[in-house]
Amino acid sequence: MNREQLIKLRAFYKNQLLNDTLPFWFPRSIDNEFGGYLLMRDADGSLIDDDKAVWIQGRTAWLLSTLYNTIEPRQEWLDAAKAGIDFLNKYCFDADGQMFFHVTRDGRPIRKRRYFFSETFACIAHAAYAKASGDEQAAGKARALFTTCIQYADGEKKLPPKFTDTRPSKGIAIPMIMINTARQLCETIGDPRCDEYISKWIREIETGFVKDDIQCVMEQVAPDGSIIDHIDGRTLNPGHAIEGAWFILQEAMHRNNDPHLIDLGCRMLDYMWERGWDQEQGGIFYFRDVYHRPVQEYWQDMKFWWPHNEAIIATLSAYLLTGNEKYAQWHQMVHAYSYQHFHDPQHGEWFGYLHRDGTIAQTAKGNLFKGPFHLPRQEWYCYHLLNSYLDKDRV
Amino acid sequence: MNREQLIKLRAFYKNQLLNDTLPFWFPRSIDNEFGGYLLMRDADGSLIDDDKAVWIQGRTAWLLSTLYNTIEPRQEWLDAAKAGIDFLNKYCFDADGQMFFHVTRDGRPIRKRRYFFSETFACIAHAAYAKASGDEQAAGKARALFTTCIQYADGEKKLPPKFTDTRPSKGIAIPMIMINTARQLCETIGDPRCDEYISKWIREIETGFVKDDIQCVMEQVAPDGSIIDHIDGRTLNPGHAIEGAWFILQEAMHRNNDPHLIDLGCRMLDYMWERGWDQEQGGIFYFRDVYHRPVQEYWQDMKFWWPHNEAIIATLSAYLLTGNEKYAQWHQMVHAYSYQHFHDPQHGEWFGYLHRDGTIAQTAKGNLFKGPFHLPRQEWYCYHLLNSYLDKDRV
Repeated sequence: MNREQLIKLRAFYKNQLLNDTLPFWFPRSIDNEFGGYLLMRDADGSLIDDDKAVWIQGRTAWLLSTLYNTIEPRQEWLDAAKAGIDFLNKYCFDADGQMFFHVTRDGRPIRKRRYFFSETFACIAHAAYAKASGDEQAAGKARALFTTCIQYADGEKKLPPKFTDTRPSKGIAIPMIMINTARQLCETIGDPRCDEYISKWIREIETGFVKDDIQCVMEQVAPDGSIIDHIDGRTLNPGHAIEGAWFILQEAMHRNNDPHLIDLGCRMLDYMWERGWDQEQGGIFYFRDVYHRPVQEYWQDMKFWWPHNEAIIATLSAYLLTGNEKYAQWHQMVHAYSYQHFHDPQHGEWFGYLHRDGTIAQTAKGNLFKGPFHLPRQEWYCYHLLNSYLDKDRV
Repeated sequence: MNREQLIKLRAFYKNQLLNDTLPFWFPRSIDNEFGGYLLMRDADGSLIDDDKAVWIQGRTAWLLSTLYNTIEPRQEWLDAAKAGIDFLNKYCFDADGQMFFHVTRDGRPIRKRRYFFSETFACIAHAAYAKASGDEQAAGKARALFTTCIQYADGEKKLPPKFTDTRPSKGIAIPMIMINTARQLCETIGDPRCDEYISKWIREIETGFVKDDIQCVMEQVAPDGSIIDHIDGRTLNPGHAIEGAWFILQEAMHRNNDPHLIDLGCRMLDYMWERGWDQEQGGIFYFRDVYHRPVQEYWQDMKFWWPHNEAIIATLSAYLLTGNEKYAQWHQMVHAYSYQHFHDPQHGEWFGYLHRDGTIAQTAKGNLFKGPFHLPRQEWYCYHLLNSYLDKDRV
């Protein structure tokens, strides 16, 4: 891509973010009565459920704070972020300190799950909000949540297990989410633990999950890194591994374009693009089997919105870091597929769920798992990536 | 349908069962080393996983015993049933008495879930096997498991909850599975508790879940039977409700064609056929929303094999009980769709998972949730339905 194309792309992402994605959600989603956000919305924005998904309450507060910190200091963004932070603190922690997963509009708990993702998203929300507001208490909370997450990730703190000890396994999700959590802490309030931990989690991914011999990034493996040859153990999540690829490419940028990390991130992207991209009908498959056997999960060949957000970021990152035209081409492919198939030109934002053939499977823009996160993060991050690339280039 | 058509249909179901469905599974699926069955198989029968799903181990032992009891007393079926019964007893109960959900080939536990379906399937397996073998111990075990299931169903025995008490709900799955479990006990070893309990569970369905005002059978409701107007509470499972319809039509037959039960079963079928049948592309949708809003579950508009098995049985039952040609027509529609789209003429048996448009989403014939149960049960049950109808008619 030439400079002119990159400048156009930057304008496109910024414009989509500010004039298409954000207006779908705000201001109507801010709950002025109970705090937090009302995000479960149909295509036209009508509310389909007033419950609140705790992951997404945290992600939304993070997004709004981040826009304030990095786009412009609009008071409405800061106020809206505060509504989420207050709701999280008032209603989303159980008496034992663990966070809920799903609460009612007025904050009564519906479900607590055996994961700590609510905690990671609450952590980055508090960190970004602390930077935006200067609120020391929020910064303290972010650090305390980071400590809790590290304890879970290290196995020092345990959640009730879903499986017995018969066939132990570890997932790539933990080191991935922790890299991202630490990175957000670095960018906002800073934390002396971040660098060392990020290096440790990258090593875990590299040595445990990236399999060069079969050109694959595993979603889960045995504790020694070997492949578990059963349906679950063989299941790959290409979009998730591609998200992991850009987390590592982002670290490469923060370490003076560290060639080892660039190579690692690009290998992860290469392997999982090859396995995930649907050569026949376009888009990224949700799940694949490492040995090309049938996958259990029913939605395995559907096209979900978020793997496409991750692939848009990963391909652009790889291109800007390496100049390899292959990545520019992949970026254009996934960008074109996504904005053609997922984007709703009538009401803004993206649909979440397409059939394999690219037709819309259901119309919700927000539900228990989808909200203002992956898409606006992608548009925001790509805008910034291009901004710093073009700025640097100009010098 | 005229008599000649019904005779042809009877021959079709028997032939499919004995010469297409069963040969896909047996004898190759009997695990001569550890007992139980190796059922996770791809389209051509090759094994994709040697783990064992406990629900399906029980269902398979039930099927084999039932074939022995009701088709002909083939020693190979009885021996194969024993392999499953022995495996269940040796490996599938935890020390606390609760059953596992998923074990390794050699019976080491992988996962225990917060449901008691493993117990209901083990119960009917033991009951049918007790009748086939005359084994008094198996009969005792069946009765003890039935007691346990009643205790769970009545709330006397509790499993760890998945949700908090904030928004209590009850599901149609419990009274449905219990009607079927009790019916199987009646047909095999008999149990004095069955009749009264079956009547109670039918009342629970009729008063709690069947909504005549909106022509709908709910999948879950609040304890007082009101609709929970949130995504989960609004989600309908038409194929499951249609299964409930034929359980009730079956009870109608056992009670001298009780007109109230015929009416109830037919209403349930009518309501959910209307909501579940895909007018545009044929087949039965997996999930629908009671108010036609987007459903959370990703696979909501896919066509799964088992709702079609249930609809084939329900429409035939309704037709034979009422003579209403509408049901004959529905039967022909769902029969034609299913044997055209799900059936694999090359290797036998059915594929499990189609896209909305009827194309195959993945090729497995067996996995954690699919095995020799819904399809052979449908073929076996329709054969028997037609048999007794045609016999009676002849008198």
